[in-house]
Amino acid sequence: MPLTFFTPGPAQLYPTFEKHLQTFVTDQLGSISHRSQQYRDLHKFTVDQLRTLLNVPATHAILFLGSASEIWERILFSCVELESFHLVNGSFSKKFYDYSNALNKYAHKQEKPMGEGFTAAEVVVPEYAELICTTHNETSSGVQMSVSEIHKLKQKNPGKFIAVDMVSSAPHADLDFKLIDTAFFSVQKAFGLPAGLGVWIVNEKCLKKAESIRKQYSIGAHNDLPTLWKNSLNNETPATPNVMGIYLLGKIAEDFNKTGVKNIRKETELKANLLYNFIDKHDGFSLFVKEKSQRSQTVVVTNTKLPSADIIKVIKEKGMVVGSGYGQFKSSQIRIANFPATSVAQVEELIAALETL
Amino acid sequence: MPLTFFTPGPAQLYPTFEKHLQTFVTDQLGSISHRSQQYRDLHKFTVDQLRTLLNVPATHAILFLGSASEIWERILFSCVELESFHLVNGSFSKKFYDYSNALNKYAHKQEKPMGEGFTAAEVVVPEYAELICTTHNETSSGVQMSVSEIHKLKQKNPGKFIAVDMVSSAPHADLDFKLIDTAFFSVQKAFGLPAGLGVWIVNEKCLKKAESIRKQYSIGAHNDLPTLWKNSLNNETPATPNVMGIYLLGKIAEDFNKTGVKNIRKETELKANLLYNFIDKHDGFSLFVKEKSQRSQTVVVTNTKLPSADIIKVIKEKGMVVGSGYGQFKSSQIRIANFPATSVAQVEELIAALETL
Repeated sequence: MPLTFFTPGPAQLYPTFEKHLQTFVTDQLGSISHRSQQYRDLHKFTVDQLRTLLNVPATHAILFLGSASEIWERILFSCVELESFHLVNGSFSKKFYDYSNALNKYAHKQEKPMGEGFTAAEVVVPEYAELICTTHNETSSGVQMSVSEIHKLKQKNPGKFIAVDMVSSAPHADLDFKLIDTAFFSVQKAFGLPAGLGVWIVNEKCLKKAESIRKQYSIGAHNDLPTLWKNSLNNETPATPNVMGIYLLGKIAEDFNKTGVKNIRKETELKANLLYNFIDKHDGFSLFVKEKSQRSQTVVVTNTKLPSADIIKVIKEKGMVVGSGYGQFKSSQIRIANFPATSVAQVEELIAALETL
Repeated sequence: MPLTFFTPGPAQLYPTFEKHLQTFVTDQLGSISHRSQQYRDLHKFTVDQLRTLLNVPATHAILFLGSASEIWERILFSCVELESFHLVNGSFSKKFYDYSNALNKYAHKQEKPMGEGFTAAEVVVPEYAELICTTHNETSSGVQMSVSEIHKLKQKNPGKFIAVDMVSSAPHADLDFKLIDTAFFSVQKAFGLPAGLGVWIVNEKCLKKAESIRKQYSIGAHNDLPTLWKNSLNNETPATPNVMGIYLLGKIAEDFNKTGVKNIRKETELKANLLYNFIDKHDGFSLFVKEKSQRSQTVVVTNTKLPSADIIKVIKEKGMVVGSGYGQFKSSQIRIANFPATSVAQVEELIAALETL
């Protein structure tokens, strides 16, 4: 019996994945040249679908890289000459900060414990920080910084670049790209695809900054922003890309657009409500994120009375997979992905199974 | 009618590709956690199969990245504090050199025109170069530097690191990893897989060097060698990898091992001979690489009397795809990939079609 994955990435594959994969194989798209018109059309299709889905204006390019982690590095190379600033409240925002140090930038951080989030009002951006790094959705802790707070933060700091990690929240996060300079996600979360592709949305201001930094410092050699940008104007990539991933992403984004992103977001919120209400009421579980507005809509984290391994085992016997807690919370929490690939009915089935515990 | 691709990457997919892809889907491997034992077993399987296939000793790690181009960058970060040295005789060896400059290293080069290759005897390695960058097979020009010449070059320069680009020649290139510090390839060439995965073979000396360089300079933040190495000891990767690519590569490598790498190499040479003999005898074609020992066994390049576009068109009508020339030779050459995915019979069919021109 196939399992239903509620794991926060790699996650359940989107129901249409197999159909699109079959077309990819039948059309021999794995063999086409990445310098052919056929490829450029495929590339453009995916970019266009994502542009519609996420409401990305022409000021921003949509670029394809190997992973979101690679994009962390490329953002830091491109937007930070000397100093970056990071809001850190979990393992992934911490890694973004670590990357800046590893590139020998001066990385500032404002930190909160796992399970807590940030509001714009409490953030103090260091004077010389060039880039503010935010994480819309901390996959490790299930905390979100609401989109409106991210927007406010940029409005308070118009002279600084702002980057948004939306790895596990795109396309739910409704960012205003008139404010957001750069954002990124990977496909193995809410897009329900196998891992191996990161998507970088980035504006011309970042490009100019990268070109300026390059006069004095290295901005990397592989997938540097000016080269990526130049190739993207021709619907190409500098090196041979993950053509399969790009194709499948375009088809899934098209499916999302047919449903309508508003409907997808609404269903995500409906399912998140079901899960949070259940956790709140059931004795064996308790909410990890205390502040309601900071609870992630796409990765629901709950404390568990029973060891998480026991719960995972019982749930798996019923054909479903949930994630363990992250790091120090591995055995005392479970994480439940709430991505478009799992339906309301499937979430209800999961809740019914958790209820018996 | 499905086409047969003789293009030098992306190329014809290996005949067993679809079967393995189906297993990947049926077993829901696109959803498994990259921190699970199931993933670690999958990862180890692929590493073990590659180790057998390419005769890689325990001194070397086998690492998975996004592409061979990414590996260029990581090799330069890891093995070059200040100066690198490059044998440049085509577009890809040139890009390796460009990457070093982009990282603000001092990059030396020894250059030959497209279509010509290097012997160890004629190479003059600059005194302070830390790394010698060789390209076993120049995909752009169809020139190879024979494995024995690469080995000699290292023997003449035992104190320097040597890197071998075997992007379009693995598993044909029979490297001696007692001599070779690092080598790399991508999967969309001779392994007959869709693009999106690069494989980096690298020894402990490179690791030590990277750790030493890091004390003073950045060695990158994403997929830096020490972090990749540490994760590989646990059969994991630092970030979520292209699990599908790694799985498929393991299965194809297993298929290759069942056939036996010697048989694969022998068949490759047989097919290359068929192609070169045909080119030599047919009026409409002439050999681009004059020196016989420098003719690639895996990417056969020929000058054409007719414009290459005309040839490509006629051949395509017969159900086959060959590549155009590269760069300045786009219209005056064709490139014919000679990878394991195309059989002797298919090569004979191609030759029969070219004969009618």
